[in-house]
Amino acid sequence: MAGFDAATALEAHGGGRYAGQLDPAWQIAGKPNGGYLLSVLGRAALAEVGAGYPHPLVASAHYVAPPEPGSVELTVQVLRLGRRTAQTRVSLATAAGLCVEALMTCGHLDPAEPFFDGVEPAELPPEKACPRLPVEGPGFLVPLMGVLSERLDPATMGWAVGKPSGRGELRGWLRFDDGREPDPLALLTVVDALPPATFDLGVTGWVPTLELSCHVRAVPAPGALVVRQRARHVAGGRVDEVCDVWDAAGRLVATGHQLAGVRHP
Amino acid sequence: MAGFDAATALEAHGGGRYAGQLDPAWQIAGKPNGGYLLSVLGRAALAEVGAGYPHPLVASAHYVAPPEPGSVELTVQVLRLGRRTAQTRVSLATAAGLCVEALMTCGHLDPAEPFFDGVEPAELPPEKACPRLPVEGPGFLVPLMGVLSERLDPATMGWAVGKPSGRGELRGWLRFDDGREPDPLALLTVVDALPPATFDLGVTGWVPTLELSCHVRAVPAPGALVVRQRARHVAGGRVDEVCDVWDAAGRLVATGHQLAGVRHP
Repeated sequence: MAGFDAATALEAHGGGRYAGQLDPAWQIAGKPNGGYLLSVLGRAALAEVGAGYPHPLVASAHYVAPPEPGSVELTVQVLRLGRRTAQTRVSLATAAGLCVEALMTCGHLDPAEPFFDGVEPAELPPEKACPRLPVEGPGFLVPLMGVLSERLDPATMGWAVGKPSGRGELRGWLRFDDGREPDPLALLTVVDALPPATFDLGVTGWVPTLELSCHVRAVPAPGALVVRQRARHVAGGRVDEVCDVWDAAGRLVATGHQLAGVRHP
Repeated sequence: MAGFDAATALEAHGGGRYAGQLDPAWQIAGKPNGGYLLSVLGRAALAEVGAGYPHPLVASAHYVAPPEPGSVELTVQVLRLGRRTAQTRVSLATAAGLCVEALMTCGHLDPAEPFFDGVEPAELPPEKACPRLPVEGPGFLVPLMGVLSERLDPATMGWAVGKPSGRGELRGWLRFDDGREPDPLALLTVVDALPPATFDLGVTGWVPTLELSCHVRAVPAPGALVVRQRARHVAGGRVDEVCDVWDAAGRLVATGHQLAGVRHP
């Protein structure tokens, strides 16, 4: 079991190629977390474009096949190095083949205050009043809950006792268990780290991510993050979810959008 | 000037390569519309994966450089042909180089009714009570308004007379001027076809799309579409916008998310 930095560490092999080791702690029900994989891809992209483009600004990943824990190879293709942004394509593969492909634009996040914020704030009880999610999930193991502290608003935890609210929303506090503070790279994990919002609709099955895009909007302040995961629409065996993340100073720092498969009535 | 089907027509050259002609009618201020380009990429992806995967389900594009109207080359790499979905990478280039790269997952849209709909409906006056956007934009030409009929709710048109509402929301009715009915491929254009929602915040400059992802949720019924474009957050010279699209039967058929550059105070 490794903290975030060790679990996403890469070795550069030159020519845009990197090698990494996927850590079994960053899994859910035997599959690596899609956000964790996106952070691994992000680390490769940032390494390849260099210090002139220090932050992931927007990343879009399509998930092809879930990799096993262990050795992975990453390949970064730089599409364009511009004045303000660098655009890349990144792939993650195991010996069995391609697992994830992503497009990632890197650049510099501006610390200035937002000009406009139209995102409804999340309201929830203090962190200590929210119960921590256990490693034992509903019918499967969630090792990820052993490396991330996720404390959910009890008002959004009815599904754990068979009483989902039907609103399709989860919200909670999130920290890295090893004390590591959040940064833009880690936010790529955070936007996919909560349980599926479909749990709050009474749909408790596995929700494999087909596509995940993440907009990183600011460098987060130190401290616990607030994360809100909402199901927007469930139809035809697919759900789209929006995940907003605020830092300890109350600033919106990232938004994730994903389309995932789901078995619903 | 060509209708949607002619403006997105492609010639197959084998080996995943396609040739097309970008039409100057599908431009805004001298740049091709990002949604139009996404439909061109989508047509190539659908052609390559074949009839077993008839609909684009989710597409994610990063915009590298705006192409001039005229000849373009597309290259489709099939990442995986699965039982239910086909995943592809598609690029669009001119003689000057790469312009757009996208990941696109194709499959079959299920006609069954949604299980859950948490997206706030758009309310707006009847189509005929909404004024049509002209080809003459605020300081630049929008040829796109000569091929798309966009009739905006007057309550979201204050920016046209210097009185933006400050809510960051535009909503209106959209049809293809040549009478073509909407389909999943065309929805890739529709999610990026309204003016920037930042106009309603009093920010009227050019808003170049960095990244656009589109979730297609259903095959649209014939008739006018309802489109709502909202600015979520404007900070650090970037805006994220969410665009929801409903068909004439009132069903949510597509959602677009984009991160774009914007000059704001």
